[in-house]
Amino acid sequence: MNRRITITEVKSSLDLALAGKDMYALVKELYPICRSITGNGFRASLKEIANHIPIQTREVPTGTQVFDWTVPREWNIKDAYVKNSRGERVIDFKKLNLHVLNYSVPVQAAMTLSELRPHLFTIPEHPDRVPYRTSYYKEAWGFCLSHNQLQSLVDDRYEVSIDSSLEKGHLTYGEIVIHGRSDEEVLFSCHNCHPSLCNDNLSGVAIATFLAKLLSSLGLRYTYRFIFIPGTIGAITWLALNEPVVPRIKHGFVVAGGGDSGPFHYKRSRRGEAEVDRAAEVVLKHAGDSYKILPFSPYGYDERQYCSPGINLPVGVLSRTPHGQFPEYHTSADDLTFVKPENMARTLYQYLAILEVLEGNGVYLNQNQKCEPQLGKRGLYRSVGGVTSQPVNESALLWVLNLSDGTHSLLDIAEQGEMPFEIVLQAARRLEEANLLQPIESNA
Amino acid sequence: MNRRITITEVKSSLDLALAGKDMYALVKELYPICRSITGNGFRASLKEIANHIPIQTREVPTGTQVFDWTVPREWNIKDAYVKNSRGERVIDFKKLNLHVLNYSVPVQAAMTLSELRPHLFTIPEHPDRVPYRTSYYKEAWGFCLSHNQLQSLVDDRYEVSIDSSLEKGHLTYGEIVIHGRSDEEVLFSCHNCHPSLCNDNLSGVAIATFLAKLLSSLGLRYTYRFIFIPGTIGAITWLALNEPVVPRIKHGFVVAGGGDSGPFHYKRSRRGEAEVDRAAEVVLKHAGDSYKILPFSPYGYDERQYCSPGINLPVGVLSRTPHGQFPEYHTSADDLTFVKPENMARTLYQYLAILEVLEGNGVYLNQNQKCEPQLGKRGLYRSVGGVTSQPVNESALLWVLNLSDGTHSLLDIAEQGEMPFEIVLQAARRLEEANLLQPIESNA
Amino acid sequence: MNRRITITEVKSSLDLALAGKDMYALVKELYPICRSITGNGFRASLKEIANHIPIQTREVPTGTQVFDWTVPREWNIKDAYVKNSRGERVIDFKKLNLHVLNYSVPVQAAMTLSELRPHLFTIPEHPDRVPYRTSYYKEAWGFCLSHNQLQSLVDDRYEVSIDSSLEKGHLTYGEIVIHGRSDEEVLFSCHNCHPSLCNDNLSGVAIATFLAKLLSSLGLRYTYRFIFIPGTIGAITWLALNEPVVPRIKHGFVVAGGGDSGPFHYKRSRRGEAEVDRAAEVVLKHAGDSYKILPFSPYGYDERQYCSPGINLPVGVLSRTPHGQFPEYHTSADDLTFVKPENMARTLYQYLAILEVLEGNGVYLNQNQKCEPQLGKRGLYRSVGGVTSQPVNESALLWVLNLSDGTHSLLDIAEQGEMPFEIVLQAARRLEEANLLQPIESNA
Repeated sequence: MNRRITITEVKSSLDLALAGKDMYALVKELYPICRSITGNGFRASLKEIANHIPIQTREVPTGTQVFDWTVPREWNIKDAYVKNSRGERVIDFKKLNLHVLNYSVPVQAAMTLSELRPHLFTIPEHPDRVPYRTSYYKEAWGFCLSHNQLQSLVDDRYEVSIDSSLEKGHLTYGEIVIHGRSDEEVLFSCHNCHPSLCNDNLSGVAIATFLAKLLSSLGLRYTYRFIFIPGTIGAITWLALNEPVVPRIKHGFVVAGGGDSGPFHYKRSRRGEAEVDRAAEVVLKHAGDSYKILPFSPYGYDERQYCSPGINLPVGVLSRTPHGQFPEYHTSADDLTFVKPENMARTLYQYLAILEVLEGNGVYLNQNQKCEPQLGKRGLYRSVGGVTSQPVNESALLWVLNLSDGTHSLLDIAEQGEMPFEIVLQAARRLEEANLLQPIESNA
Repeated sequence: MNRRITITEVKSSLDLALAGKDMYALVKELYPICRSITGNGFRASLKEIANHIPIQTREVPTGTQVFDWTVPREWNIKDAYVKNSRGERVIDFKKLNLHVLNYSVPVQAAMTLSELRPHLFTIPEHPDRVPYRTSYYKEAWGFCLSHNQLQSLVDDRYEVSIDSSLEKGHLTYGEIVIHGRSDEEVLFSCHNCHPSLCNDNLSGVAIATFLAKLLSSLGLRYTYRFIFIPGTIGAITWLALNEPVVPRIKHGFVVAGGGDSGPFHYKRSRRGEAEVDRAAEVVLKHAGDSYKILPFSPYGYDERQYCSPGINLPVGVLSRTPHGQFPEYHTSADDLTFVKPENMARTLYQYLAILEVLEGNGVYLNQNQKCEPQLGKRGLYRSVGGVTSQPVNESALLWVLNLSDGTHSLLDIAEQGEMPFEIVLQAARRLEEANLLQPIESNA
Repeated sequence: MNRRITITEVKSSLDLALAGKDMYALVKELYPICRSITGNGFRASLKEIANHIPIQTREVPTGTQVFDWTVPREWNIKDAYVKNSRGERVIDFKKLNLHVLNYSVPVQAAMTLSELRPHLFTIPEHPDRVPYRTSYYKEAWGFCLSHNQLQSLVDDRYEVSIDSSLEKGHLTYGEIVIHGRSDEEVLFSCHNCHPSLCNDNLSGVAIATFLAKLLSSLGLRYTYRFIFIPGTIGAITWLALNEPVVPRIKHGFVVAGGGDSGPFHYKRSRRGEAEVDRAAEVVLKHAGDSYKILPFSPYGYDERQYCSPGINLPVGVLSRTPHGQFPEYHTSADDLTFVKPENMARTLYQYLAILEVLEGNGVYLNQNQKCEPQLGKRGLYRSVGGVTSQPVNESALLWVLNLSDGTHSLLDIAEQGEMPFEIVLQAARRLEEANLLQPIESNA
């Protein structure tokens, strides 16, 4: 394995079609598993991921105090159904695991429709979709079904069965660390707790898995940490158990919603103008895809925890359609047809482009600050003068020279010169080779 | 009198129709009186206001030096007219007190139309309106009349009479102070010197009077001071005589033009981003009325004095159509039909909403800054998860928690979260009750 | 010569038609001369300018080291042509000096069209125009011609002759210093090296010449320095040889492209918000011409050198259509029909207006900061009150008084009050005469 390959090289040589195909295949493997914030479904999913990257599995016992929270009992489920008086399963967990209210306590009972009714969840405005609902922290049981299905239920004596268990056990999560030259870290966090829902967040799980795989083969500046955790309680647990790691995290991402066909959205970290926020913006600005930059807000995915005031990490969210804003969100319509291989591949590409900025950014010093150096005698400038337009690469050389006074990073220069970062980076490399530029901050 | 009622309560329980009716009745009482910057008309108006709130009357002698100015002689008037040769009053002060140039010196003379002409003021572009004109600081006499009226005057021998006096006396103003827990003050200033003109500024006088009345019954954080003064010279006189009070004024308003049907306008103080400026903006942004925020400029009403560089108080102007920008301004068309009870009532409501911000604003400390606290176990969060949208009240809880790191006030949070202040305030109260939030700056 | 005349006076009394005519006449004189970055054409042009203003000529020997550059050999040319086998000059330097690649080494040869072809430069997209091309720093020879002309050339044996010399000599530039009360300087730099091209930059040369002439007769605050230099190497040479002068330069302009009919463009200095940048913006905002303010970028004219990081002077560029953005740029179409006397005159006027700001700007102290002073008793305010609108001059008085608290310059006041600077300046003068205002920073 050649550890000298850079992100720039892998970015430009990546076979996106193949990467998309591979990520989609992983989504497909993971889709049928009934995951929750704890339990065997989560473990089975980590095992599947481990076929691609060597993740460590961590087990945190029920009852562990994590800041204001307590690791809950572990939930497992074998079967669940509602049978009518003819013994037919009118709601059947085996057909779709969304049918059970996630974290339902066990129940075994017979009841009328009107007794059952308060335990049934539907989406009247999307009558053909089954909602995804949970009750992690309040003991309850229930079923989710399409509104059409609900309306077809007749007055009857129903047999209700949920064969689940809620017992002392563990919260499980997966973690992989890829070491770079520096022990400063870039964090990728994705929630792996949703059952049969593809965009949110099997797409994130697959993108993170393949990004980790790609990074493993590169020569890296930063150390990269990927965590596959249950939402909310998982992020809180990880932060509570890894407080010494937190100060080393220089940049981070919540990876979610990367497979739908919507425009890209980058949600800034709480800091608002962190390097990762600016890197994401400069990349999306020049990538040619439609995109939107969103301000930080304290709801959404696990950035809620990473960006809580006492943690305040520079963690942003790169997704396609944002959290909760696609109508398929948290319904059975977020299925294998809703995410596309090419969408995940393009999302992966944007992550690589952002990492190219973070890896390549630095402050340089123009070695010849009084007037321009004579680029022509160094073969860096056209020899025939008088032409109208400035080639973009010459512009980049001039921008880098002009702003490399010790107060501007290459990212600053890309922003001010309104140029793609890779052009600026390339210009800096050429000037460095010509001894016209020297780094003044270590790129490790 | 229950001193524990808050502005939030009075704001939501106020009978706006009744308040509008009461304020309009006061405007109607005051309308016929011939006011000026000094004199008995001003005193009579204060007496009328005193029927509603216990104002103090202050008398400042002619000749008192007030900064660069001198309190002028007192002006009083009994009658004024122009009679034609048939003895008919063709211009008659008794019919409309605007007909006399305010502060006219006494005159008793007979003259031709062409001799009279230089003393006559009209508005040719609004030929049916009588203008309001003054000559406080230069001895002059004159009559104001409609342009139509002027054109109907024939060549004749006219008897001109102004039975006025300009003598040593006093400048009079009214003042009321309503004490709160703190001796930091909120100033309300309104000019009470205009004769029969309703929007400018009997509407302001009426709104200030009823606002003072409402505040008198509340438990208040700040001390409130209302002054009813003549324009310009009154503000200068008050500031010159009350220099020790000035540093205690934390927020202030010039109350004027609150009765017409135009959109709301808030003109910022000279400081531009004072708390009162931001409070007014956050209120108008969410109130649902059309509105505009205006930058400070050094002309307009008495903010000219409060915002002079050596005073520089955070005093803004909340009005409907701004100073000088409605065509009825300073004409006989600014009459009892031009102001509406419901307009004044809605303006009063906006003042209450702004005061709610000023009274309720403060900096709090999230007691649990590492990750979110578990709101669910405290009954502050929905128990069934997975739903798409965030209820506004949950959002407000999250915003308050996220930004209450000791550097953001509730007003900052309302601005950044783009939420009505009252929602933020309510969220802060709920979190304080749940011991998740503590004030770090006294709300007195 | 009355040294008390101010820029304000000259600006308002200037006969623009005459100034335009005079500048155009100078352009016409200079047009036929074959200039380059060195040589006798440059010297002849300076002699022509010296007929209008007493410039000094400076000679810098070939081989002088100037920062990263070396003063090149001097280039002179007598004749150049391409003759066909019938002895006809099919390309003829005598007809248009653009026909020779500027700085061509001497050549005397016979060759086929295909051998000649690599030495011919055209503009296929503008087939009737002859391009302007140079090869200062790489030895080469060539001809520039219209694409139509190229296409009419037949296969033939051509005689090629360039009777030029490239030998040790000098780089020549011209300089004039006009002393003001302060030795702080305003720099005007214009490149004088282009051969028969009018807008770029004979227009700049003519405007600078006449501006220097106008300033010579005035009482001035600043010292003004005009330099007529070859582009790039001239600016670098001047900076390298005048390092002690650099810190005295408080404001500066690159004068170029002032004769076409496009809208005005002001390109900010690298500092972005320098006084000269703000002065140019406030002038263009109120001048009534269409205009655009451009951010700094490190390519264009000699601002590249003045705004290099180690020099970083507050030097902006006022032009009409900017550098390289008119299709006639660096072609034979930039001729005597492309520039207009009235365009140059209006550009000259804008320069005067900007200098009026720089000369007149300063910080004043309101002598009466508590409330407004009584302007009426000093004859500075209307005597009859109540009128609707504020005359612009009264507004300016109030703005100057309100902001003259020691932290705002007159330029700040013009910006904040959105008023023409000359109105603000006039208001300050009136207030100073009335002893209501005192300068606290010397206007020398």
